[in-house]
Amino acid sequence: MSYLTGFHAIEELIKSGKAKGPLLVCGAGPRARAIVTLAVERKIPVNRVGEHELDRVARGHRGIALTVESGEETNETTVEEFIAGLEEGQDAIVVILDSITDPHNYGAILRSCDQFGVGLVVVASRRAAKDGETVSKTSAGASAWVPIATIPNLVRAAELLKEAGFWVYGADMDGEAVDKKDLSGRVALAMGSEGAGLARLLRETCDGMVSIPAQGQVDSLNVSVAAGVLLYEASRQRRAKKQ
Amino acid sequence: MSYLTGFHAIEELIKSGKAKGPLLVCGAGPRARAIVTLAVERKIPVNRVGEHELDRVARGHRGIALTVESGEETNETTVEEFIAGLEEGQDAIVVILDSITDPHNYGAILRSCDQFGVGLVVVASRRAAKDGETVSKTSAGASAWVPIATIPNLVRAAELLKEAGFWVYGADMDGEAVDKKDLSGRVALAMGSEGAGLARLLRETCDGMVSIPAQGQVDSLNVSVAAGVLLYEASRQRRAKKQ
Repeated sequence: MSYLTGFHAIEELIKSGKAKGPLLVCGAGPRARAIVTLAVERKIPVNRVGEHELDRVARGHRGIALTVESGEETNETTVEEFIAGLEEGQDAIVVILDSITDPHNYGAILRSCDQFGVGLVVVASRRAAKDGETVSKTSAGASAWVPIATIPNLVRAAELLKEAGFWVYGADMDGEAVDKKDLSGRVALAMGSEGAGLARLLRETCDGMVSIPAQGQVDSLNVSVAAGVLLYEASRQRRAKKQ
Repeated sequence: MSYLTGFHAIEELIKSGKAKGPLLVCGAGPRARAIVTLAVERKIPVNRVGEHELDRVARGHRGIALTVESGEETNETTVEEFIAGLEEGQDAIVVILDSITDPHNYGAILRSCDQFGVGLVVVASRRAAKDGETVSKTSAGASAWVPIATIPNLVRAAELLKEAGFWVYGADMDGEAVDKKDLSGRVALAMGSEGAGLARLLRETCDGMVSIPAQGQVDSLNVSVAAGVLLYEASRQRRAKKQ
């Protein structure tokens, strides 16, 4: 059991139809009131509590917190289920996250995945970011929407995707400039942690490496910024092709 | 006086020639040893200290910390000085940050500015992010490189830039798709906070608004991801023009 406090995250989880509540309320700002109205519409129980009680369970709240059962906040799926759900010839973008353990980066990446229409995020079961509350908040609620598959072996996930017609590209500073690479169709982008990069076996499974052309004094972009840029570029190319 | 603990940040500040030290060392990992070697080369005093002492002044250190005088860690400049330094016909990108108070976002934006060759970052003196240590660490040291002008009035900065031939664009969800806008030449991008957006007067001073086409369930990208995407797009267009 945990408590979600971000206004955005609470709203999105309620809208996703997965929140069971109860919603705990002690304040009465306009934003909190709007969320209470939404919860009532969606038949989620609302409990008025004292500020002291809310402080105890949900540090950093702004007058409102949503009770969340663990697991409730993610759209869990499997790689196989995702592939089975694709229509013939349907384009898709998948993101494979290798060792993105920082919950702020993970949340920001999920938020970008939502914005750029990513169909599936694959994470390794051992090494995923743990702090669900921070992830949910940083993702602005996107962790309630974006389909996520947790799998023990990312190489296996990459192989399944390749069999389903995906081109799997790893993000790497030594890769080919991303705007020179065709990212339309079925594409999976694998991102590693800032320090270690992609694990060797996963890297070897990729069809190629892509990089973001840059010129800085320091050596790279923040991993969530890099993910956002790659997804933007993929979505830009897809829009350009449609025109 | 503060203490920088990120390996990256320490290295970059030493390389920038602005660090005076002393460098405090209690560990002896390979990364820490490489930094000590660098410091000795650059004639920065190195003090061996007990772990307890380092814990006291630099929580979260990994065996090493660089003593930093306040102000030492930024490339401070003014808008006027930056403009005076431009050669005739020289292209440039400027980023104007309105109310980006979160030090993690601010640091990640500075890191992207470094990567994409931003010539100047302008921040409002009242509302800048304060936590220099977090900014420096999150920026991976870029806060030691990227020229930053602090000015009481961002509208004044935008006007000075326009007089110097810059097109000033504000980032806004209702703006024109950024890949449809010509971002070559002299361009300034103004970014507001995620909640409030750009202040009205600054908005009115802009030559136009640009947005990142997206399709998510939640309402926008993280501000540092959005900044990274806009800078990537500007740099992509510039590269494409040169070819």
